[in-house]
Amino acid sequence: MSDERALAPGARIGIVGGGQLGRMLALAAARLGLSCHVYTSGEGEPAIEVAAKATVAPYDDESALARFAAGVDVVTYEFENIPAATAEFLNKIKPVRPSPRVLALTQDRLVEKDFVSGLGIGVAAYARVDDPGALARAVARIGRPSILKTRRFGYDGKGQTLLKEGSDLAVSFRSLGGQLSILEGFVPFKAEVSVVAARGLDGEFLAWDVGENVHDNHILDTTTVPAHIPEDLARRAADMTKRIAEALDYVGVLAVEMFVVDGPDGLGLLVNEIAPRVHNSGHWTLDGAVTSQFEQHIRAVCGFPLGATRAHGPVVMRNLIGDDIDSWRDLLRQRGACLHIYGKSEARPGRKMGHVTFLKT
Amino acid sequence: MSDERALAPGARIGIVGGGQLGRMLALAAARLGLSCHVYTSGEGEPAIEVAAKATVAPYDDESALARFAAGVDVVTYEFENIPAATAEFLNKIKPVRPSPRVLALTQDRLVEKDFVSGLGIGVAAYARVDDPGALARAVARIGRPSILKTRRFGYDGKGQTLLKEGSDLAVSFRSLGGQLSILEGFVPFKAEVSVVAARGLDGEFLAWDVGENVHDNHILDTTTVPAHIPEDLARRAADMTKRIAEALDYVGVLAVEMFVVDGPDGLGLLVNEIAPRVHNSGHWTLDGAVTSQFEQHIRAVCGFPLGATRAHGPVVMRNLIGDDIDSWRDLLRQRGACLHIYGKSEARPGRKMGHVTFLKT
Repeated sequence: MSDERALAPGARIGIVGGGQLGRMLALAAARLGLSCHVYTSGEGEPAIEVAAKATVAPYDDESALARFAAGVDVVTYEFENIPAATAEFLNKIKPVRPSPRVLALTQDRLVEKDFVSGLGIGVAAYARVDDPGALARAVARIGRPSILKTRRFGYDGKGQTLLKEGSDLAVSFRSLGGQLSILEGFVPFKAEVSVVAARGLDGEFLAWDVGENVHDNHILDTTTVPAHIPEDLARRAADMTKRIAEALDYVGVLAVEMFVVDGPDGLGLLVNEIAPRVHNSGHWTLDGAVTSQFEQHIRAVCGFPLGATRAHGPVVMRNLIGDDIDSWRDLLRQRGACLHIYGKSEARPGRKMGHVTFLKT
Repeated sequence: MSDERALAPGARIGIVGGGQLGRMLALAAARLGLSCHVYTSGEGEPAIEVAAKATVAPYDDESALARFAAGVDVVTYEFENIPAATAEFLNKIKPVRPSPRVLALTQDRLVEKDFVSGLGIGVAAYARVDDPGALARAVARIGRPSILKTRRFGYDGKGQTLLKEGSDLAVSFRSLGGQLSILEGFVPFKAEVSVVAARGLDGEFLAWDVGENVHDNHILDTTTVPAHIPEDLARRAADMTKRIAEALDYVGVLAVEMFVVDGPDGLGLLVNEIAPRVHNSGHWTLDGAVTSQFEQHIRAVCGFPLGATRAHGPVVMRNLIGDDIDSWRDLLRQRGACLHIYGKSEARPGRKMGHVTFLKT
């Protein structure tokens, strides 16, 4: 049965955002005989030169957005910080997948936490913080160490600050610019894991093996697959991700980051964050699984059947941050190392320049 | 030790030819942070829209060729029927890899056969045929059935005709347009196999597992890897390919097609054809091996170290010819089927529209 909303090879995918995720999405789309039109606000971004077409314009340029949407068959996005109004605007012209509702929900940490805990899924203790008074009350309830985060536009450790015993709360609040925030209890986790999964237009759900993530200075350093967690915990992690995807009527690839914690009944899971897009912790699928997260996302948003998520074997993915990229030649020399370079001209500190996946034999 | 002829990420690769092989080369180059400039004589070809830049111009347009070469760091090609003069011209401006000499040699079946047999490697009985008289003498020596082939510009069964008992030789010769030709003895082969391999700028040589090919109406239908041949025969096939690559001082991916035959000392191999480029029988490496033939070719022509050729497991690759492509949705539904669609607008009979690789578990 073919869904009338489903596309066919030859269709044109609109991708909002021009970074490495957009680049890898465009490369995956090309394998399936699809063309991409990238819409981004920045010149020279990595996705531009592998796409059939690109528009460089502000995210609130309604005439550029309207032309973009008119020329494509479906719109998706490669990062979640595009303005919700942009997604809403595009969605009036062509289907935006995942939906603007998903985008709005995951753009606000408080709304996301309320949503996840509303599903009966565990999250860290959290409290709404609109002003310094609310912060004092939140600290009284949640204690310290805890983390004050802006509700919106945080990533890779930006827009957050750790509250220790003795931290001046007013200073901490001001350090985030006095924005609407959320206080989260510090989780003494045993491991950080993520489930990368896809839900098709027909509701089909498939997850890859759970990955175990190590961050360095708030930026993902390595993902090891499979995660070193018991089988039943991995199954629960995938089940939680499926419930989240279904509750969102999600279409596309999503990633759910979780903490593995000691609980009263043994190991438990707390959801930390939902990323409504392909995710850095799923990059290993390009070389280590039958279907990559990028192809799967394209399949899902086009209404195609999903592909097999089976891994070829255990893998470790390592990000190449800043001048890590200088080791490219040594990495190419390592047998079983699959190197990806994003084509960014300048290797600034903290900038994701590429990644390498080590396939174990 | 870095070779001074070696490039680095950020370099620009010139690809002559705009078909699906060029498309897959450009996609592989993008993974490594390289840009591609495609030069092709035909509008709307598959490689154009995935390349950073494209020039559509005749292959003898020296000013377009000169501009193309000036803007890239290395030139390679995706099909062997580009005029040798084009390759020579480009090579005066930027390195062409594999070399124009390789191109000239493999463009002429007679020169290629002389070269291979000169290495002491077996080939089918063959004879030079410049005119009908020479054809009569060749048939007297080689017998029938045998195959009359034009020396130049044949592919997928084009430019050849089978000589049976009773065929009119003059008619056969005229049917190929009276071109300089070669008569080849018909080989009662037990199997057709090919070795796809790469040689780096530093002389490093790596082959993938031998593939077993089945043709349908002279067009490759399936490649099964590994081929159903004894281990020692597979090793000999790889060794022959290595000797050929070394004798050519080859840089890049090449494919050597061979017949498996019964010989006086058991199974033997006769070389049928050398393809100085990525090859249809190596398409399975995109999904079934650590490094694809496309990435390997890019690595080699850039002077990068070669990648591991290990297969993830047994595979079967099937070409999608003409309206085979209409089954795309069913193929996407098959778990373990990796589908590639080349983005050609019209599914003409005999036209390669895509391929699918079945990964066996």
